[in-house]
Amino acid sequence: MRALIKHHAGPGLRFVSDRPRPIPGPRDVLIRVKKVGICGTDRHIWEWDEWAAGRIPVGIVTGHEFVGVIEAVGSAVTNYRPGLRVSAEGHTTAWKDYNSRTGSAHIASDTKIIGIDRDGCFAEYVCVPEENVWPVHASIPDRVAAVLDPLGNAVHTVMAAGVSAKSVLVTGTGIIGLMAVTVARAAGAGRIFATDIDPRRRALAKRLGAVEAFDPRDGGWIEEVRRACRGEGADVLLEMSGAASALNQGFEALRNGGVAALLGIFKKPEPFDFNRLVIFKGCTVLGVNGRKMFETWYQMEELLLSGRLELDDIITHEFALEEFEKAHQTMIRGEGIKVVMDVG
Amino acid sequence: MRALIKHHAGPGLRFVSDRPRPIPGPRDVLIRVKKVGICGTDRHIWEWDEWAAGRIPVGIVTGHEFVGVIEAVGSAVTNYRPGLRVSAEGHTTAWKDYNSRTGSAHIASDTKIIGIDRDGCFAEYVCVPEENVWPVHASIPDRVAAVLDPLGNAVHTVMAAGVSAKSVLVTGTGIIGLMAVTVARAAGAGRIFATDIDPRRRALAKRLGAVEAFDPRDGGWIEEVRRACRGEGADVLLEMSGAASALNQGFEALRNGGVAALLGIFKKPEPFDFNRLVIFKGCTVLGVNGRKMFETWYQMEELLLSGRLELDDIITHEFALEEFEKAHQTMIRGEGIKVVMDVG
Amino acid sequence: MRALIKHHAGPGLRFVSDRPRPIPGPRDVLIRVKKVGICGTDRHIWEWDEWAAGRIPVGIVTGHEFVGVIEAVGSAVTNYRPGLRVSAEGHTTAWKDYNSRTGSAHIASDTKIIGIDRDGCFAEYVCVPEENVWPVHASIPDRVAAVLDPLGNAVHTVMAAGVSAKSVLVTGTGIIGLMAVTVARAAGAGRIFATDIDPRRRALAKRLGAVEAFDPRDGGWIEEVRRACRGEGADVLLEMSGAASALNQGFEALRNGGVAALLGIFKKPEPFDFNRLVIFKGCTVLGVNGRKMFETWYQMEELLLSGRLELDDIITHEFALEEFEKAHQTMIRGEGIKVVMDVG
Amino acid sequence: MRALIKHHAGPGLRFVSDRPRPIPGPRDVLIRVKKVGICGTDRHIWEWDEWAAGRIPVGIVTGHEFVGVIEAVGSAVTNYRPGLRVSAEGHTTAWKDYNSRTGSAHIASDTKIIGIDRDGCFAEYVCVPEENVWPVHASIPDRVAAVLDPLGNAVHTVMAAGVSAKSVLVTGTGIIGLMAVTVARAAGAGRIFATDIDPRRRALAKRLGAVEAFDPRDGGWIEEVRRACRGEGADVLLEMSGAASALNQGFEALRNGGVAALLGIFKKPEPFDFNRLVIFKGCTVLGVNGRKMFETWYQMEELLLSGRLELDDIITHEFALEEFEKAHQTMIRGEGIKVVMDVG
Repeated sequence: MRALIKHHAGPGLRFVSDRPRPIPGPRDVLIRVKKVGICGTDRHIWEWDEWAAGRIPVGIVTGHEFVGVIEAVGSAVTNYRPGLRVSAEGHTTAWKDYNSRTGSAHIASDTKIIGIDRDGCFAEYVCVPEENVWPVHASIPDRVAAVLDPLGNAVHTVMAAGVSAKSVLVTGTGIIGLMAVTVARAAGAGRIFATDIDPRRRALAKRLGAVEAFDPRDGGWIEEVRRACRGEGADVLLEMSGAASALNQGFEALRNGGVAALLGIFKKPEPFDFNRLVIFKGCTVLGVNGRKMFETWYQMEELLLSGRLELDDIITHEFALEEFEKAHQTMIRGEGIKVVMDVG
Repeated sequence: MRALIKHHAGPGLRFVSDRPRPIPGPRDVLIRVKKVGICGTDRHIWEWDEWAAGRIPVGIVTGHEFVGVIEAVGSAVTNYRPGLRVSAEGHTTAWKDYNSRTGSAHIASDTKIIGIDRDGCFAEYVCVPEENVWPVHASIPDRVAAVLDPLGNAVHTVMAAGVSAKSVLVTGTGIIGLMAVTVARAAGAGRIFATDIDPRRRALAKRLGAVEAFDPRDGGWIEEVRRACRGEGADVLLEMSGAASALNQGFEALRNGGVAALLGIFKKPEPFDFNRLVIFKGCTVLGVNGRKMFETWYQMEELLLSGRLELDDIITHEFALEEFEKAHQTMIRGEGIKVVMDVG
Repeated sequence: MRALIKHHAGPGLRFVSDRPRPIPGPRDVLIRVKKVGICGTDRHIWEWDEWAAGRIPVGIVTGHEFVGVIEAVGSAVTNYRPGLRVSAEGHTTAWKDYNSRTGSAHIASDTKIIGIDRDGCFAEYVCVPEENVWPVHASIPDRVAAVLDPLGNAVHTVMAAGVSAKSVLVTGTGIIGLMAVTVARAAGAGRIFATDIDPRRRALAKRLGAVEAFDPRDGGWIEEVRRACRGEGADVLLEMSGAASALNQGFEALRNGGVAALLGIFKKPEPFDFNRLVIFKGCTVLGVNGRKMFETWYQMEELLLSGRLELDDIITHEFALEEFEKAHQTMIRGEGIKVVMDVG
Repeated sequence: MRALIKHHAGPGLRFVSDRPRPIPGPRDVLIRVKKVGICGTDRHIWEWDEWAAGRIPVGIVTGHEFVGVIEAVGSAVTNYRPGLRVSAEGHTTAWKDYNSRTGSAHIASDTKIIGIDRDGCFAEYVCVPEENVWPVHASIPDRVAAVLDPLGNAVHTVMAAGVSAKSVLVTGTGIIGLMAVTVARAAGAGRIFATDIDPRRRALAKRLGAVEAFDPRDGGWIEEVRRACRGEGADVLLEMSGAASALNQGFEALRNGGVAALLGIFKKPEPFDFNRLVIFKGCTVLGVNGRKMFETWYQMEELLLSGRLELDDIITHEFALEEFEKAHQTMIRGEGIKVVMDVG
């Protein structure tokens, strides 16, 4: 089959057309891939940074965001049949620890990820365990269904924090941050404030529902948010930037007793004033990782069915799988936001 | 001052123009009333039904929904000054029991209500304890500010149930039910289904955001809701009708593990199948009364500031206080939905 | 193998010694049974009441509470090996609906129960799906491990209601009610009040930690509970009796804003005053069914490891499997509380 | 009256016998003090460290933990009368911001504290606002009632984290940490693990209910906690030490998805690895400050009434007010744990 593989311990991917089609184990489902999304993680794999070099096995098929159609099922699979249009959760687990047995498999202690620890979806076919399959509602188009995984990050962050009837501050409007703006609005946030150093991202954040988008380097924006929120601060902080300055500023702008959900990954541990920013304020801080398996997926479906998610400005480019170099570069250079590749 | 009083133990109210202006106690605030709303409770008082005859002291000024401006404050009042535009929570308490000391004063054991147990707001001036005052945000117009109390019932019900990214069924779209539809939508509900026997109310429910509005007497609607919700049922039930049939049907249409918030008051105790509708389903049932003091008020303000609440189709009529008879009849006959009277 | 089977559509069970040993499917685990518990449900099956006649397939092996040792595993089983001492959750599901995919499989829409819908554990061997297996901690003795299923009902009810630092009323101290008393105490309840018409059960409830146990037919007990609780009422109601009178009295004794968890099954739908008992009080009512899969099991293990659960007075009798008639009668006649049978 | 005052901008306090008795304002309550507790904060005030020098007005009466009897009430006070035995919440607020109007006044933005920002309770009489009064249950002795404030810190931390049926790690067993051990046990924790560098504190932690108490400087204890907790880690972390190393180690020992409640105050901001310790683990971090007004007080009363709190080993010394020097030194030198002074 056709596939993109991490062919060497260095930058780039290689397109091959003779990769053997994966054979599903007894509890696996084989899926014929239609469309895939390129994730920020795929950028790290492409660029072969320190993290990628330490984690990614050379030779694997990359990619973990996709939609496709079930082609075949393993002998012990009971819930699915060929022909069903599906996406899948990319995190796999043996379902035997506390979190995976209590509704929080997304933080299982034995998590592996397709396209990172094992073959992924940048290929004509991909195999996933039966438990990971997500049937896609008929009303959701393929280009959206291809990016449910990253959209799920945004939904999980927004829903973990709880934004309904609350004022919300989003620090960092990269791909997930922008998704978080439209998700927060659809999920019932009151006023949404955003920060980003990129003026185009700020403009887009406002188009997606933010009442104001600030350049975090400008003095005074924290005070402006606090003033808009009774002089006390925003109810909720969604930290999407991974910048220590944004973390500190975000907590400054949060009211006492506020909730902060952290999704952005920080470059390195920085000094953090727990006393002033968390303890004296009585704040709640939530670490957010992946998507709840599968509560987030149900929430995401309901939000999509409500018709209130605005993804047209976020899914900006679509390429053929063979144009993978251009597709990756469009994303890496920041020309596009979410980039999708057509496989089938 | 001018006022509407319950002048005798029978139907109707009387307009008087020589009612003495109330004198605030040391911890009270005197408010000059601008606009008032007529509540379903005011209908009971007008018609002098069994409940009203047993509760309402003859001679009081009625009414509990209003907006006005602070005219004077008692000697021990510290937080407010004359000139501030305010509404007020109509439930008063001595703030000494468990619920009033832990953020749930709306269900205090010693609750009194203005316009029901003591003089209310259908008058040029009304007195309330300092703790009950709610400063109204400058961007909220008087006609909306006059009905924050009933809107708060809807907000409390919606927020207690938790509708964000969930499918919601509203049984009964009277005044509060209709408000609940637009509130649920603004607060992040996914698809909203509604039921009502009145076709105009159903049409209005759809205009306010319901994807479907059913006549509950038609067979098959329960199955239709369940089918739309994966064959399992809606995530949330908001019971707004006070009809036993709606309660039973609502639970039928609710999925296992769903949440039902009950606001509608039932005529009398009816047989209820706890086994099948609550216990085996693992459902959660929430009794909803009044509005949280003051969490609901903050949530309501944030939803109003988001610009997503649609109240223009709900606040249908406005009369002068002197036209009180016409105003009450418009509401009682169902010609209007929410009826407001201008006082000042 | 030896087994107890429901041999005909009428009262009693039959002991057989030539039942074929079950053969595990690819995802099943075969367990050699050591000890089993007799459930209230087994009484219904024994007596062949209306419910049993409508649900139980004649010919099945009954029983669903047990501890044993894994004998063999199916070809697609990955998490377990022969030799492990285990109990198992008796509710099976295909893990494909909302609740089973979000941590609430105990209320899945497709639930089947071993010993009720398919062969159970009153036998030398029993088969369960891999997902249902619960490894038993080494410090938990077999006689306790045999009754984790009903203990789990009590733990689920107590934990759903949330009793930590709260006053708790338990109405009905049958097997699960008595377990709930010791579980509530271990789980951090403040004062526990209990009601039962049986004086021996009341005495036992006090031995297990209730500060007071009332005969519900005595006037004045509701007032006594309310008075002990600041004149407001208990924080939490655990309804374990299935008696409509207990339900009503329990809500009377509950404070405004209290939480009621309902586990007892009612004989038939009775009139219930939602207005006065739930809506005006702002109460929360929780339907409780089975045990959370598997949050309850983890909580139960932690409580057992704390050493604070007192089960010696609850597990009163132990018989050989061949003494099944005497074992069942001891339980049915109320001579014993929890009755265990030795199989292996 | 007799009183201890901060007589100069330097170490120590001065005993005076001619301090004028405070005069209650219209909404204040005047309390004749019986017993007081010495807080860790009082040590800072005694030693006049940087924090004290920047915050404490020279000349005030210090102390904020006490029990006494109401002597007189202001003209606008309605809920209390002279003769009632009471303690009081030491944090005052104007009750006008979000948190104070929604049940979280302990994190109001305008908080003042008696004995820190205004005259406190190390005196024959103290004045507090009516809202701050807490009537003490008759069954609670004065020496316990004198220390409800610090006990409330422990109760708030334990209850915020939620310990019922969970494994709990307490890092740091100073006064509040030791209280947290007995509170956690009474509130339903499963196994409790503790760390402290002081062997006497470790021994006391075990006497109060910890299954194991580790010296955090010993290698291997983190692994030991994780191993005891299924190899995954403890469910809950209560950080009571204010040491950065304890914070880091505590998160290491916490399972994915665990909850950490932070009460200890850190000397200065230190680098913290949010990625590894919070985000990837999906943990929840709670800043804990003071005590909930007044949910914590109700919880504390219920725990005290349960008879399961063991405070005899914690309240170690009792002195007369005149022995204030010895009392403070006993606490500062670590000879005693909780030191109480008799005033009346």
